Amino acid sequence: MSSGSWEEFFAVHLPPTDFEDNRSLLKEFCERHDKYGNRIALVTSGGTTVPLEHNTVRFVDNFSAGTRGSASAEYFLEHGYAVIFMHRQKSLEPYTRHFSGQKLLDMLELDERGPNTTITVKPDSVDVLAPVLARYKAAHSAGALLHVSFTTVSEYFWLLRAACECLARLGPRALLYLAAAVSDFYIPKDRVPTHKMQSASGAPIIQLHLVPKMLAPLVSLWVPNAYVVSFKLETDENLLIPKARAALDKYKHKMVVANLLQTRHHRVILVTPEASQEVLLTREEVHAGVDIEATIVGEIVRLHTEHLGGPSVR
Amino acid sequence: MSSGSWEEFFAVHLPPTDFEDNRSLLKEFCERHDKYGNRIALVTSGGTTVPLEHNTVRFVDNFSAGTRGSASAEYFLEHGYAVIFMHRQKSLEPYTRHFSGQKLLDMLELDERGPNTTITVKPDSVDVLAPVLARYKAAHSAGALLHVSFTTVSEYFWLLRAACECLARLGPRALLYLAAAVSDFYIPKDRVPTHKMQSASGAPIIQLHLVPKMLAPLVSLWVPNAYVVSFKLETDENLLIPKARAALDKYKHKMVVANLLQTRHHRVILVTPEASQEVLLTREEVHAGVDIEATIVGEIVRLHTEHLGGPSVR
Repeated sequence: MSSGSWEEFFAVHLPPTDFEDNRSLLKEFCERHDKYGNRIALVTSGGTTVPLEHNTVRFVDNFSAGTRGSASAEYFLEHGYAVIFMHRQKSLEPYTRHFSGQKLLDMLELDERGPNTTITVKPDSVDVLAPVLARYKAAHSAGALLHVSFTTVSEYFWLLRAACECLARLGPRALLYLAAAVSDFYIPKDRVPTHKMQSASGAPIIQLHLVPKMLAPLVSLWVPNAYVVSFKLETDENLLIPKARAALDKYKHKMVVANLLQTRHHRVILVTPEASQEVLLTREEVHAGVDIEATIVGEIVRLHTEHLGGPSVR
Repeated sequence: MSSGSWEEFFAVHLPPTDFEDNRSLLKEFCERHDKYGNRIALVTSGGTTVPLEHNTVRFVDNFSAGTRGSASAEYFLEHGYAVIFMHRQKSLEPYTRHFSGQKLLDMLELDERGPNTTITVKPDSVDVLAPVLARYKAAHSAGALLHVSFTTVSEYFWLLRAACECLARLGPRALLYLAAAVSDFYIPKDRVPTHKMQSASGAPIIQLHLVPKMLAPLVSLWVPNAYVVSFKLETDENLLIPKARAALDKYKHKMVVANLLQTRHHRVILVTPEASQEVLLTREEVHAGVDIEATIVGEIVRLHTEHLGGPSVR
């Protein structure tokens, strides 16, 4: 079954209910940073869902905790970029990704002895928490980080196009880092049943349809001057580089970050039209908790700066 | 397509890799609380996944944030029960459910002026955080709360059976509160492809199979003396009570908590073989942040106590 066009997709699927609010936020953010001549990185993160029912009980999901995107957003901020963090609801977010809820509560000490109850972070946890908290507060007080979120693949596409429309004004200073795990498949709106599928009617068959490739209009029409980086996640090593090269040939963007599901936290290959470069963490670095995203983002910022023909921002 | 038997399911699907660790934890927990004559509530929470590939990139998921289960676990603890909280990885958990990572970081104040960096909770956040933190610490220091987690439907069933085997020794003092959103469908192990499905091969068709109804062996064989509460979530009001009654007739357990997806946070119906009782929050209660689980759990504890023929535990 062939995929419909991207125009058709937007014609058939209505915008999400909070779409206008998010569009205003995106517009204000891009205008403000454009005025100051800043660079903006749009970082997409987490997986999209494909609902199997209108009153959604069941859906097809793409695996992604949001590790790559949330870590990368922090490094773009460190390099002086303003960041639009466009993420799957409840996936990992910059700064908070370092601590689960339980880990944070375990760091806290409750003192009810005095006239006023106080809660403090235990001294041995301060070393871990303080640097992250300082960077979190700096990013927020500078207004350098905007969060917008999606759940379904249709919400993702609506947000992505809206962000591009706002980013277009920045020209080459806009960088798109499309790390979200977007479904290749979906179920067209008119094929989705209204109510929960009943097990009494037997086991269902789900016919999926191909999602149109949004990278095509994105690169050629929406943000023709931006620095666009896409991602390729595979489980079969043999397909990895050929598929990355094929994507660059087809969409004419700047880079594909290619990675395997099994090794993605310590190995990626940065594939550009000119070259391919392996980024690898040693076993020691992995154990020390080094983020491979520090290197990935550092290298992309270097290439983006070169592309801009100007000095590094920081 | 008809479902296989539950024996067949366990024969075909291997136990999860961390299964023996979890079984030891469950065994120790149940033996300890049995010795003291405590009651134990097994609270299951969150949705299960059905992997579409062995190297899982895509899966079918059941919608559930874990709101019902995580809130209920807190109320069982308040009523003096020991609680096994068996939840979907990354779903909401008791106590931490009140605060997202960002909300917690926003409560913290960093002070780097003195010789030692300190981090304290802002005074206006202490009122909100202190009571939750106190209950969190009390539950943990009493050893009254055990967390075990699952992701796939097969992991869920392995854990559920292991928990039942440990709970059986408590007889009627064991209460099962099966709030997890468990998939009715799955893909048998031998039908799942090894590698990521390729979009170039066209849109896939997914043939799902029915999952065996584990409530049958659970009630009749695994924990024949326990107080078992199951849940029914529908989107169609007309099916709700008939399906709850049918489940009670078929499995002979104690209660079905029936709820509609659309109204589940302020309305449920507690259906027992003898009666059905609506629990409803007013609009004011919803706005004030009252948990409907406080009433649900309170009523179940009352019925469980009656069933035990003894006085309330607290």
